[in-house]
Amino acid sequence: MLNYKKYKRFQTIKLKERTWPNKEIEKAPIWCSVDLRDGNQSLVNPMTVEEKLDMFNLLVKLGFKEIEIGFPSASHIEYDFLRKLIEEELIPEDVTVQVLTQARPHLIARTFECLQGLNKAIVHIYNSTSILQRDVVFNMSKEDIKQIAIEGTRLVKQYVKDFEGEIILEYSPESFTGTEVEYALEVCNAVVDEWDATPENKVIINLPSTVEMDTPNVYADQIEWMSNNFKKRDSIILSVHPHNDRGTAVASAELAMLAGADRVEGTLFGNGERTGNVDILNIAYNMFSQGVNPELNLENIVEITDVYERCCKIPVHIRHPYAGELVFTAFSGSHQDAINKGMKKYEERQTGIWEVPYLPVDPRDLGREYEALVRINSQSGKGGVAFVMEHYFGFKLPKAMHKEFADIIQGISEKTGEIVPQLIMDKFKEEYLDRKKPFELVKCRVSDIQDSDNNTRIDLQLEYNGDTLTLQAEGNGPIDSLKKALIESKLVSTTILDYTEHALGKGSEAKAASYVKIKRTDNQVETFGVGVDSNITLASIKAVFSAINRLYSVE
Amino acid sequence: MLNYKKYKRFQTIKLKERTWPNKEIEKAPIWCSVDLRDGNQSLVNPMTVEEKLDMFNLLVKLGFKEIEIGFPSASHIEYDFLRKLIEEELIPEDVTVQVLTQARPHLIARTFECLQGLNKAIVHIYNSTSILQRDVVFNMSKEDIKQIAIEGTRLVKQYVKDFEGEIILEYSPESFTGTEVEYALEVCNAVVDEWDATPENKVIINLPSTVEMDTPNVYADQIEWMSNNFKKRDSIILSVHPHNDRGTAVASAELAMLAGADRVEGTLFGNGERTGNVDILNIAYNMFSQGVNPELNLENIVEITDVYERCCKIPVHIRHPYAGELVFTAFSGSHQDAINKGMKKYEERQTGIWEVPYLPVDPRDLGREYEALVRINSQSGKGGVAFVMEHYFGFKLPKAMHKEFADIIQGISEKTGEIVPQLIMDKFKEEYLDRKKPFELVKCRVSDIQDSDNNTRIDLQLEYNGDTLTLQAEGNGPIDSLKKALIESKLVSTTILDYTEHALGKGSEAKAASYVKIKRTDNQVETFGVGVDSNITLASIKAVFSAINRLYSVE
Repeated sequence: MLNYKKYKRFQTIKLKERTWPNKEIEKAPIWCSVDLRDGNQSLVNPMTVEEKLDMFNLLVKLGFKEIEIGFPSASHIEYDFLRKLIEEELIPEDVTVQVLTQARPHLIARTFECLQGLNKAIVHIYNSTSILQRDVVFNMSKEDIKQIAIEGTRLVKQYVKDFEGEIILEYSPESFTGTEVEYALEVCNAVVDEWDATPENKVIINLPSTVEMDTPNVYADQIEWMSNNFKKRDSIILSVHPHNDRGTAVASAELAMLAGADRVEGTLFGNGERTGNVDILNIAYNMFSQGVNPELNLENIVEITDVYERCCKIPVHIRHPYAGELVFTAFSGSHQDAINKGMKKYEERQTGIWEVPYLPVDPRDLGREYEALVRINSQSGKGGVAFVMEHYFGFKLPKAMHKEFADIIQGISEKTGEIVPQLIMDKFKEEYLDRKKPFELVKCRVSDIQDSDNNTRIDLQLEYNGDTLTLQAEGNGPIDSLKKALIESKLVSTTILDYTEHALGKGSEAKAASYVKIKRTDNQVETFGVGVDSNITLASIKAVFSAINRLYSVE
Repeated sequence: MLNYKKYKRFQTIKLKERTWPNKEIEKAPIWCSVDLRDGNQSLVNPMTVEEKLDMFNLLVKLGFKEIEIGFPSASHIEYDFLRKLIEEELIPEDVTVQVLTQARPHLIARTFECLQGLNKAIVHIYNSTSILQRDVVFNMSKEDIKQIAIEGTRLVKQYVKDFEGEIILEYSPESFTGTEVEYALEVCNAVVDEWDATPENKVIINLPSTVEMDTPNVYADQIEWMSNNFKKRDSIILSVHPHNDRGTAVASAELAMLAGADRVEGTLFGNGERTGNVDILNIAYNMFSQGVNPELNLENIVEITDVYERCCKIPVHIRHPYAGELVFTAFSGSHQDAINKGMKKYEERQTGIWEVPYLPVDPRDLGREYEALVRINSQSGKGGVAFVMEHYFGFKLPKAMHKEFADIIQGISEKTGEIVPQLIMDKFKEEYLDRKKPFELVKCRVSDIQDSDNNTRIDLQLEYNGDTLTLQAEGNGPIDSLKKALIESKLVSTTILDYTEHALGKGSEAKAASYVKIKRTDNQVETFGVGVDSNITLASIKAVFSAINRLYSVE
């Protein structure tokens, strides 16, 4: 039995008069990406410098004008990354980078050292103000906690004097949703005063739901109350930073925007600590679907997904709004019928207004396509082809192979339109399984002997340009000895990069499917090869020839 | 550039006086699971009968009292499944099954045929009422569409007369969120009248956001307006059925509950068409986290996740609220520090009230555990161990192997508490890689010859209980010939069930990791074995011996 009595609701402001439920979202907020800070810090394998650069470039391409890049005073890697961005002049003029730091003297000093050379930056300081943290973590009075915020502001101000560029201050009363609003207001007002903020020199006040604690309407009430009660509202950019503990971060951000938020901090696909930050793409596409300009360049969700998955090593769920593999697929017959009729009418009427049942947006606007059941065409993501190969035919293509094969399918689907699964399988056979040129494997004998250094011997008979060749070599396994035989023959020059194998089917009828990734060393071209055989060793050998034939094909 | 002008917001009611934002969720709604209908119909591989039964039993165990099991008049499989439930008496007395049907005579006739033998059932009829569907799909007037609903109600009533059990009617104006509320009200009132609903014989009026079209406050306004304006509110159970197109289904359901909904239809983890239905577990745990009894048995989220993933073949995302692999993990040092202090205070103070920063609920209440970074202990899900094996050591354990190995780790962690990754690896070696009893492989020679029927010959030398054995056989691959050699020796009696292999590391140092799943045929015990070798063939042979040693171990 769940011990629900162990929990209580945090009691906060309930507005008597609220205006936010009467409003509609009319324009985009200022977006601030925290992918490289909040997002990155919560990865099991944080991004490498190259991945950070790829992510940064993607964010710039998407049109983010404010990007939090890390906590450089606390992390050497983040320090070096920002220096790299500055020294290699990788930050476009209209993009402002933001750095997080705690409000301590040595951390602020180090932060400003890192910022040298920038024309403009946002320095983001924070301290926790919640009742709970004041009690169990800090054991400090309200006044003491407020002084931390004021002292931090004073320190930043002091360093700004000697800094050549422009500095915008951002202050977060961390754990805002667990703080009495009156006290949060008092602390924020003190920061605004200490900074001497004016309508021309605004300060960013960021009110995070560090932990999402209640339904989104409660967060909206808190935001509206704060917005109404700031001493100098016109000198403040009111920012929100919702987390997703209750699964309602998108709603919280949206209702907060109705309640007066000017700015939203979040990440792509909601990466971030625990359940994550709010998903900015989700909010932006929601706005788009209602005819509001999201002021981000979101035409190609497939590309966004690819870069994200590669950098963060986190999959986008198949039901994730707008981006998931299945969200533009209709399985129900009546849905399919209604969509077909709606699309037909949309074409006929030429009103330019999208109105199709069960499809709140036209998938083509996002670089995708509607699918009745799972089918593949030129706009399908690379995952779509892999999905069909696995669910229809049992081939679990290695992740790195998805793009290669999807590009092949895209080539034909651009000519022929939609493609049924069997056509994909036919193409897979043609491209990978049935290749016999320039090398055709005629005979192959492999002897494996356990426990010697070169413990495998291979004997091959090949057809090559009309000649019959006989090769042999020894190595530390079938693939290794095959590689040596081929290298000694001087017919090819390749490196084997990766390999996987799995059973295809079950029981005594089972075969093995083997995948190898091979690079041709003279021109650096890489490809996969695939082999199928009831014999697992021969499956891998066939896979090697499949790849080599792809690399040395003269067609 | 995104063509946002192609879209417009659907204009619906805006309440002048709304009460829902002043309310709090105080008690659980009537939960209705639609996992076996809406959830199942949107799977690429729908559930088998066995999986449906597992899912049904899980739903019963979780405490669902209303379960929509399908659309039996439209699907033979769903018809047969319900007959099986009835004939094998698998439906507990306090559980009511619900069936969906369109309001057509032959479908209703067939539905009632299927219900024979039940004491009680909910018959759920629907027709689409939205402006858009009336226009582009049906091309029918408001009056005609209303008549479909009335006629359907009349038909159900007619069949009820000859039915022995009790029938509750549910009516859904499908695409409610795209319907003028005044018209939806008119149709629903007509159904309620036609049914002669009374406070003693209530009708379920279900108002779906078939497509989520606006922010959740708008849905709440629609629900409150409907609730206030029904002619016979006291004869109605007001139900909602939110979808997640805008990523805000949980919020929509929660605000709808504030607005007067008595009942919520949804699924586990939000499975369902496109982006899915609302996630009932998410709402229930949200209630729980505020001290409200969710009236569901949710003590073991790991078990729920396991059954769900197995039946639906859809993974639960690592950041999914409450259930995701990483949602009780804190990567930030300051978060870890605050959590430690909070947990210490919680233990010291013995108030019985959970108040710990960054952890809105005590993970132990859900059968999980807080993790600073990724670490493993006796409460970790089976995914946790697999996660460590992949991210720390490169072993991609087959999904089906996760539980087997996690159980082993759980056995030791129950004794020793938390376990560091290296201990997991040590145990993995001991249990799988280093086993040499009762069979130790001393020598092994495998010859593979392409293109004959039995194209592999194996010669083995083994140590077995102090004896040296020599075996040989031929088969259609190394594993097959090994299997034959072992069978002919009469030392073991096994069947090979599955097999996978992947490269471990990169480049010339790469080894292969091979996994085989083997069943001992005399006692039906199954286990995995793992082998690692630079030679892919020997890796699989070692994997077979690893499994056989596990199956025939006498320890």
